[in-house]
Amino acid sequence: MTQRLTRKGQATRERILQAATELIARQGVAGTGTEDVRKAAGVSGSQLYHYFDSKQALIRAVITRQADAAPVPDQPMMGTLDSFGALRAWADAAIERQEQNDGRGDCTLGSLAGELGAADEDSRADLSNGFLRWQSLLNASLLAMRDRGELRAGTDLDELSLALLTALQGGSLLSQTLRDTRPLRAALNAALAYVHSFAPGDGTKP
Amino acid sequence: MTQRLTRKGQATRERILQAATELIARQGVAGTGTEDVRKAAGVSGSQLYHYFDSKQALIRAVITRQADAAPVPDQPMMGTLDSFGALRAWADAAIERQEQNDGRGDCTLGSLAGELGAADEDSRADLSNGFLRWQSLLNASLLAMRDRGELRAGTDLDELSLALLTALQGGSLLSQTLRDTRPLRAALNAALAYVHSFAPGDGTKP
Repeated sequence: MTQRLTRKGQATRERILQAATELIARQGVAGTGTEDVRKAAGVSGSQLYHYFDSKQALIRAVITRQADAAPVPDQPMMGTLDSFGALRAWADAAIERQEQNDGRGDCTLGSLAGELGAADEDSRADLSNGFLRWQSLLNASLLAMRDRGELRAGTDLDELSLALLTALQGGSLLSQTLRDTRPLRAALNAALAYVHSFAPGDGTKP
Repeated sequence: MTQRLTRKGQATRERILQAATELIARQGVAGTGTEDVRKAAGVSGSQLYHYFDSKQALIRAVITRQADAAPVPDQPMMGTLDSFGALRAWADAAIERQEQNDGRGDCTLGSLAGELGAADEDSRADLSNGFLRWQSLLNASLLAMRDRGELRAGTDLDELSLALLTALQGGSLLSQTLRDTRPLRAALNAALAYVHSFAPGDGTKP
């Protein structure tokens, strides 16, 4: 659909999605009505309806938009995290961002999955596709490391990419609930140590 | 309040909470109305209101009930996981349970935090207390291991308990979204390997 929009149409659509993302971060999906989004985006009801004919369509577009973005906003996509240094820098940026976010809430793929997971099958499929895309990007990074001999031959890359992704999600969930960055820090430390344990030679220390 | 109820009153209250928990597992908090709960529990409106005067009160009681339960239902509380063998058995039980649950949804502290986290401060505080209680139980287990010399002196127990808890939460979230046990398996493998890396001597292999 986006391909058929004019540049102005695309900008309007993006403004609506941006407003929805910000409202969901603060109020959750259940607490965000299309009328709130319409007002925040400064568009008419018929404009909103032109781009998204239901709340469900809007939420699915928010999911797709967040899946297209980097898992840690303003940080590199997961396809470029192809060294221990890059992975550590990415983890530090995630922790830093959590620290700054403190209490404001978030509208990431993880928080959307947390709220929508059980409720509806279309959203679940969209969220699932998003996570799998992140995982395949991360796998490409880990493959580059394995090809260069920084990870042992035969290392199960799926296992490592899932350990990193679940650490980001579980750590963020607990850090947001506890308003404390330590859960995210511990989760990412554990996942990075696990990745490092597959390095040839000394695999004990990250 | 529960202390002042008769045995029959306690049973009714528990029946309502059980019905709410099952509905929330399938439909989420937002999708579960008090009227659904009333019907499922087979009580009158005035009975429901007698125990829970709002949906908010009901949800907070569900949170407290789930925080009192073991993080992995039908498995030991976290205060008794005081050996590498007990931790591994607990992780395997969590994976096994996820496998059986496939797609049915859940009403755990983690899934409640995922749905309610951003939305309301009372729930966030209840959820936070629940996670901290689990963490302190887990810390007691890890302390016993450290006292017996199974973990090195000076090991940061908070870091390890948070790594285990976030692995359970992040792994469950992705496994439920992807309908695949591999994320939970990878998350728990990574966390257990991290705990094991603090054992004296060879800390590389779980």
